[in-house]
Amino acid sequence: MDLAALQATIRATYGDADRGRGVDATFGWFIEEVGELSRAIRRQGHDQRVEEFSDVLAWLVTLADLTGVDMAEAARRYEHGCPKCDASPCGCGAHP
Amino acid sequence: MDLAALQATIRATYGDADRGRGVDATFGWFIEEVGELSRAIRRQGHDQRVEEFSDVLAWLVTLADLTGVDMAEAARRYEHGCPKCDASPCGCGAHP
Repeated sequence: MDLAALQATIRATYGDADRGRGVDATFGWFIEEVGELSRAIRRQGHDQRVEEFSDVLAWLVTLADLTGVDMAEAARRYEHGCPKCDASPCGCGAHP
Repeated sequence: MDLAALQATIRATYGDADRGRGVDATFGWFIEEVGELSRAIRRQGHDQRVEEFSDVLAWLVTLADLTGVDMAEAARRYEHGCPKCDASPCGCGAHP
């Protein structure tokens, strides 16, 4: 699953609504999904977790799109391992 | 940027530390990065936003890996548009 394609699909699917809602309200929706992810991890099963991880990712990509960030470019910081020490496994403890 | 490759790289880079820390502490790190993303959106510039979006994504992928979720499988719910109405643009208002 390609992140650039996902961002383009999310823009085509929800972009008009996202721009109308704006960044602050979109951040609120993102946080609501983060809460649902917490509940799924703590008290629900695998299928519900898959759904909530996908919803958090979708709102994160929406928020990136609204703020002019290319999620694929962002993800490339981690393409070869740790962005701080460029090693995999990480040798610097940046993600402790 | 492929999500399955990103998840495999993050597992190779941080997996030992992630399993040692566990799900609850990892959720705390994820939330810390969400807070940094909020600050970057509100008060910082493009480069800082790219960094914080990438960090939130990395911790989300870490959390998925720790809880047995394949982020690429999760993202495929949105591959063709809205997972509720299967349309792009969305016709059902699921992401209002």
